[in-house]
Amino acid sequence: MKIARFQSNGHIAHGVVEGDEVVEIEGDIFSDFKASGERRKLADVKLLAPTDPKEIWGPGLNFANHLEFAAGVLGDEDPHVPEHPEPWIKARNSLTGTGENIILPHDTSGEVHYEGEAVAIIGKPCRRVSPQEAGGYIFGYSCGNDVSERAWQKDDWTFWRAKGADTFAPVGPWIETDINPQALEMIVRLNGEEVQHGYTEEMLFTFAEIVSYISQQITLQPGDMVFSGSTGVTVALKDGDLVEVEIPGIGVLSNPVVLEKA
Amino acid sequence: MKIARFQSNGHIAHGVVEGDEVVEIEGDIFSDFKASGERRKLADVKLLAPTDPKEIWGPGLNFANHLEFAAGVLGDEDPHVPEHPEPWIKARNSLTGTGENIILPHDTSGEVHYEGEAVAIIGKPCRRVSPQEAGGYIFGYSCGNDVSERAWQKDDWTFWRAKGADTFAPVGPWIETDINPQALEMIVRLNGEEVQHGYTEEMLFTFAEIVSYISQQITLQPGDMVFSGSTGVTVALKDGDLVEVEIPGIGVLSNPVVLEKA
Repeated sequence: MKIARFQSNGHIAHGVVEGDEVVEIEGDIFSDFKASGERRKLADVKLLAPTDPKEIWGPGLNFANHLEFAAGVLGDEDPHVPEHPEPWIKARNSLTGTGENIILPHDTSGEVHYEGEAVAIIGKPCRRVSPQEAGGYIFGYSCGNDVSERAWQKDDWTFWRAKGADTFAPVGPWIETDINPQALEMIVRLNGEEVQHGYTEEMLFTFAEIVSYISQQITLQPGDMVFSGSTGVTVALKDGDLVEVEIPGIGVLSNPVVLEKA
Repeated sequence: MKIARFQSNGHIAHGVVEGDEVVEIEGDIFSDFKASGERRKLADVKLLAPTDPKEIWGPGLNFANHLEFAAGVLGDEDPHVPEHPEPWIKARNSLTGTGENIILPHDTSGEVHYEGEAVAIIGKPCRRVSPQEAGGYIFGYSCGNDVSERAWQKDDWTFWRAKGADTFAPVGPWIETDINPQALEMIVRLNGEEVQHGYTEEMLFTFAEIVSYISQQITLQPGDMVFSGSTGVTVALKDGDLVEVEIPGIGVLSNPVVLEKA
């Protein structure tokens, strides 16, 4: 089932996507709900980021083929694959939806990169769950773009702005609840040309392992998002670009890129 | 004016503290409000963390006399005073109020320390404000305890659990709106004995400078919290302790310490 969050005439709701329509949900998507409300054309609503999370998590390095590239970004001369997830927090205000602009701040190095990823959406509060249990606490999966400014990522003590600047977390277009999270294909297209292609089966730590690991010390909440981590090598975005993250079986997250005026 | 957030008979509201009473606020504390609602004894309500923030920020190292200690914690052999704030995000779920337990996870190194701090509460959305303007976007100040697990702080890539584990962010007892933020005394008592004593006039970066710096890339939202950073040397908390952070002119944030059962 595909569940979108949308705005229509100033009203915000969740709905079930059926073909080119969305049927409004009555109730809470994380507890009891029915798709019994108004039916609208998708083209007539504005899709939003699929939840209003308390926290957005990244796993640290999670693809072996991103190791060398990430080490170069971070200036790490002796990179190694981590023995467990190394969670970090993507600033809450960076979240945006499909169709929204990714804004390149006017004062960056010019190296603001896409990272096409899959995103797990937490469905129930969870604390100290095992990797075996963790899947039961995940509501579904979406597409995400972990937009990253490479100079800040290297020079700052944390990723607060490198990965947390406003609009640096597009997620959408909706949540797919019935899909195998470790058998997803993640494709990024820049102006229609494929520039990144990864597979969640290559994640060093599965979504269930990452969720379990975070939950040992922090209670994850319904709506919280957990990014998969990125794969391979990326390039910089520029004013006027269109970046799409497609996960077959889920959908396409599409964002224009706009340079902020100084 | 002192503004508390409280729960009474399952109802959550803000109120103005007057002596040993709290007068319920009608309206939004960040826009128009009147203290015209029910008057209750403070002893009869449960005080909560004073806002429901989207984000909780720390400034990075912000007191010169914490430099050597922090360098030892982090294994930094060549510590230096930062040239600008180095913001980091304290996990949202770590927030708790006065009177609530700080829970020591059963699987720590045993080195979970208090850090008594002042906390700025954002009052209006702000983006790219100058240090001169930033004060106008701050609603008031509260007491905070930046609870920190020292082994995780040293070994992990980020502070996600070292400073973000559940209950590691007590803030309260309320917000004081009329006070000079750079002339505060921050006192920590452990079981009644003073163990930390700092002054916000010694902050390397003022609250206004930190807020301005973060706002260059991230829109701060009403209710967001910005910790001052900590001063000097700290020691470990243990099961059964009572830790208090007092800022004269604001109030006392008081939290019992409890070891989690394995």
